[in-house]
Amino acid sequence: MTGMGGERHRYYTLRFSCPDRTGIVARVSGFLADHGGWILRSSQHADEDTQRFFMRVEVKADSLPFEPDALREHFAPVAREFDMDWLISDSAVKKRVVILVSRQLHCLYDLLERWQCREIDIDIPCVISNHEDARGLVEWHGIPFHHVPVTANTKPEAFAEIDRLFAESGGDTMVLARYMQILSPALCAKYLGRILNIHHSFLPSFVGARPYEQAYYRGVKLIGATCHYVTEELDQGPIIEQDVMRIGHGDTVRDLIRFGKDIEKMVLARGLRNHLEDRVLVNGNRTVVLR
Amino acid sequence: MTGMGGERHRYYTLRFSCPDRTGIVARVSGFLADHGGWILRSSQHADEDTQRFFMRVEVKADSLPFEPDALREHFAPVAREFDMDWLISDSAVKKRVVILVSRQLHCLYDLLERWQCREIDIDIPCVISNHEDARGLVEWHGIPFHHVPVTANTKPEAFAEIDRLFAESGGDTMVLARYMQILSPALCAKYLGRILNIHHSFLPSFVGARPYEQAYYRGVKLIGATCHYVTEELDQGPIIEQDVMRIGHGDTVRDLIRFGKDIEKMVLARGLRNHLEDRVLVNGNRTVVLR
Amino acid sequence: MTGMGGERHRYYTLRFSCPDRTGIVARVSGFLADHGGWILRSSQHADEDTQRFFMRVEVKADSLPFEPDALREHFAPVAREFDMDWLISDSAVKKRVVILVSRQLHCLYDLLERWQCREIDIDIPCVISNHEDARGLVEWHGIPFHHVPVTANTKPEAFAEIDRLFAESGGDTMVLARYMQILSPALCAKYLGRILNIHHSFLPSFVGARPYEQAYYRGVKLIGATCHYVTEELDQGPIIEQDVMRIGHGDTVRDLIRFGKDIEKMVLARGLRNHLEDRVLVNGNRTVVLR
Amino acid sequence: MTGMGGERHRYYTLRFSCPDRTGIVARVSGFLADHGGWILRSSQHADEDTQRFFMRVEVKADSLPFEPDALREHFAPVAREFDMDWLISDSAVKKRVVILVSRQLHCLYDLLERWQCREIDIDIPCVISNHEDARGLVEWHGIPFHHVPVTANTKPEAFAEIDRLFAESGGDTMVLARYMQILSPALCAKYLGRILNIHHSFLPSFVGARPYEQAYYRGVKLIGATCHYVTEELDQGPIIEQDVMRIGHGDTVRDLIRFGKDIEKMVLARGLRNHLEDRVLVNGNRTVVLR
Repeated sequence: MTGMGGERHRYYTLRFSCPDRTGIVARVSGFLADHGGWILRSSQHADEDTQRFFMRVEVKADSLPFEPDALREHFAPVAREFDMDWLISDSAVKKRVVILVSRQLHCLYDLLERWQCREIDIDIPCVISNHEDARGLVEWHGIPFHHVPVTANTKPEAFAEIDRLFAESGGDTMVLARYMQILSPALCAKYLGRILNIHHSFLPSFVGARPYEQAYYRGVKLIGATCHYVTEELDQGPIIEQDVMRIGHGDTVRDLIRFGKDIEKMVLARGLRNHLEDRVLVNGNRTVVLR
Repeated sequence: MTGMGGERHRYYTLRFSCPDRTGIVARVSGFLADHGGWILRSSQHADEDTQRFFMRVEVKADSLPFEPDALREHFAPVAREFDMDWLISDSAVKKRVVILVSRQLHCLYDLLERWQCREIDIDIPCVISNHEDARGLVEWHGIPFHHVPVTANTKPEAFAEIDRLFAESGGDTMVLARYMQILSPALCAKYLGRILNIHHSFLPSFVGARPYEQAYYRGVKLIGATCHYVTEELDQGPIIEQDVMRIGHGDTVRDLIRFGKDIEKMVLARGLRNHLEDRVLVNGNRTVVLR
Repeated sequence: MTGMGGERHRYYTLRFSCPDRTGIVARVSGFLADHGGWILRSSQHADEDTQRFFMRVEVKADSLPFEPDALREHFAPVAREFDMDWLISDSAVKKRVVILVSRQLHCLYDLLERWQCREIDIDIPCVISNHEDARGLVEWHGIPFHHVPVTANTKPEAFAEIDRLFAESGGDTMVLARYMQILSPALCAKYLGRILNIHHSFLPSFVGARPYEQAYYRGVKLIGATCHYVTEELDQGPIIEQDVMRIGHGDTVRDLIRFGKDIEKMVLARGLRNHLEDRVLVNGNRTVVLR
Repeated sequence: MTGMGGERHRYYTLRFSCPDRTGIVARVSGFLADHGGWILRSSQHADEDTQRFFMRVEVKADSLPFEPDALREHFAPVAREFDMDWLISDSAVKKRVVILVSRQLHCLYDLLERWQCREIDIDIPCVISNHEDARGLVEWHGIPFHHVPVTANTKPEAFAEIDRLFAESGGDTMVLARYMQILSPALCAKYLGRILNIHHSFLPSFVGARPYEQAYYRGVKLIGATCHYVTEELDQGPIIEQDVMRIGHGDTVRDLIRFGKDIEKMVLARGLRNHLEDRVLVNGNRTVVLR
């Protein structure tokens, strides 16, 4: 059965951005065609505003005569020619995602479910938390759990420890799955573009603490959640994904918190998937999300 | 055919808010039952936060032995007993809605269509604009059109003229259907709760001018519109209705402006309908919208 | 802090439907007021089509001089007078929900998360499955797990066993959380209005097997899920809740299945919550969902 | 101002589908690059199911040394080589859209508004109706109006007359904007892929007559609308766009009809825009809508 497919074939993903000009697509697709590359999916965006060009291509791995490193080596001259910011990834190599969590576990449950059925096909080398609540669930799934308490006085040590655990576990991406601590600017800067947060409001509305309360008292008719890259400025990083849901006058702050969990889970999962599939390219403080 | 109904029966709408306590519904529904009142629809809300109670009832007019004035007279003692802020309206009396518009006509077209097919069953005594663009369309519909130019120097005169036209036309409600002038504080205060505006962002994000540009440069993934009561503070009034639509990295400010029209029309129409049906009760700076 | 509230107070929920006539609300609210009942929330619906009246009231438990049984006894004459189909429940008594599941665990994970944080405040006396996949997760949560295999030949015994387990566990409600067997007509009839299913399409489109494939080949632009009461006719029961999400030409059947999980989880959770809060009243083959 | 842009530049749109194979993008983008073509926007889709490839490119007109006919002539050999089903259009040439309407005018009002402000930048050579209701509005806009009555006995003549008017007016596209007659199979076949209809349900649910009534009696929680190409089989053509809105138990068939107008307008406008921008490619009975 065709539309159904079985397992997807192994493929390489090439993605890049560069200054816009004539001939980029021709050069890249010509390079691929010259080596017999079968394009499974390709998308691109030319940004009027920044005059930058963004592209992402999936190529069937066995249509090319290269393993990833050789492909990178052969593509490098093209990349240089167009001054590209680029990467090539291999669908056979799982991304390593470290999850940070506090006491609310809905995003964690949600990610673990997507991981166990391979909907999101990643390795989770460990989960880190400033509380013990998640330990049992995480360890039951066979994933190491690290308790790193954070207090007003121990922040530098705590963030250093998180940094060490992330590095040690070979993490590619750090996910703040309702982690209720503000990471240090140093950590934000060090892993720029690799830390995703889920903020429980429709940014730029209601930055900072207690967004559902803010939403309640402003009387909005929809509440939302935002998945964004973490930067040094709180809740100001490039937005990857957002969504909203309708509320009414009968809903209390308690209700908003409860309902909001559903959007938080979904928006984080969608944003993370796009990030892991190398679909998200940063364009100033905005993102290009190529399908 | 039953679910279809024919024309709806004439009905009276009673709506009120008052301090919450035991026995309000019993007293009001008892009053109606004692006079044979057939309740078509009723809804209520007890606000935990402000300890205020809100209620709206539709009663079949011919089930009561009263014309509206007599009904008001008989109900007044009940209202006093519970310290109600109340009104009774009659579905047979059309509300009079004055529309203010500038050069963009999409909300005006939309409202005229709803008016011509009686989806919104109102009188439009006149349309007022600071430009001439809408005149032809308005007059073709048989509605008087008034051009009231607004310049930096003539604002007081212009707003006085609008006030005069509104009063003279017996207007109940003033709708700013993408009217690009900021009304004077005096006018806002005089008609508090009777002037509706459509703001082209998902408030509280992007107040003030050029919200679509603000949205573009912040890189949000959804744009929205907000229908709210006009108060003296710009874009800060109680929100009646909001909605959003999804955008992507490929959409320019031009596109946002174009797409946004659809939400603006729909949100304004829904908010206005709820207002006209006496469903919207102000609760501090929030609204209760009873179905 | 007010809008936030702490734990909610204990309350009784009275809900009923009856033939529509004058004086129902007055009689019910009068009854409550006579005993000092403080109404927290009340909603009602008069169905034009069936001429039936539906009502649901939450009353603060300690405002009444009754425990639930005494309240039922005192209210019974009123119920008889209006020929009501009625029930009174007590927020202090947790509903008992038995979950049936097969091999896909996303709805189960989702419900367990909502249960562990008491978002849905129920008892789960057991989980039943025709496969062993869920055992570990369920038992880790301290919930009994029963494996009841279903084969073409053993259906009668299997369904008898499910019936026995449900009865033995004192279940109020049975939830088919992507349970991939069709219950016997006898079981459907026996627990009419107490078995909820999540169907993975926007009913009435795509009844029966493989709805995502059907959706793919019809080329729809949105896919959906439906939570409904199970009746003897497959996928024809009264609909409690539905929702949809947007798909595109680039999405394969595999993708639809994957994306669809998010709507299934959310729609089932919302439908179940409404059911458990006694908000869902059946009106012929439709439902009234009172807020 | 950058993100804002002024008027967009003149551009050519090339769109095609062909059997999928290696080197298509390279050949097409190579052809464009060889002539200095500046790609403004490009998107493509490789269909796993039908093994067909779909592509759409916008090229800045003045970056190429060709007028459209010369471009077509130069591109023809490429098209033959890959067995393409293709077209090239010119943004400077307005499409000609004939609108058919009956007595409900909301879609017509909506399209006229989009036309008058050039949101949809088309020519409307005429409007055709089986009733006189729309005449005044249409003629006030300076557009010819043709009354072509359709009765049980005069269908062949009526459809022949519609065919004649469409041909005479040089129409590219025919839009059934709530036109309540079923076109003859001959007309459907003659203009396959050029006639758009708006059906007032979320197809494939509720085909044929009175979809809102069908939706009401089935008790669905969302209603929808579908924009599709007209084929000889009623309501079975390829779907271009769909959307839904939430309804509740309190909404009668009358309400559904009223609310549904908003989705109908929006879905038709979006579908039509995509069609006019040459974004919609038919793939069997499904569509590919390239952004």
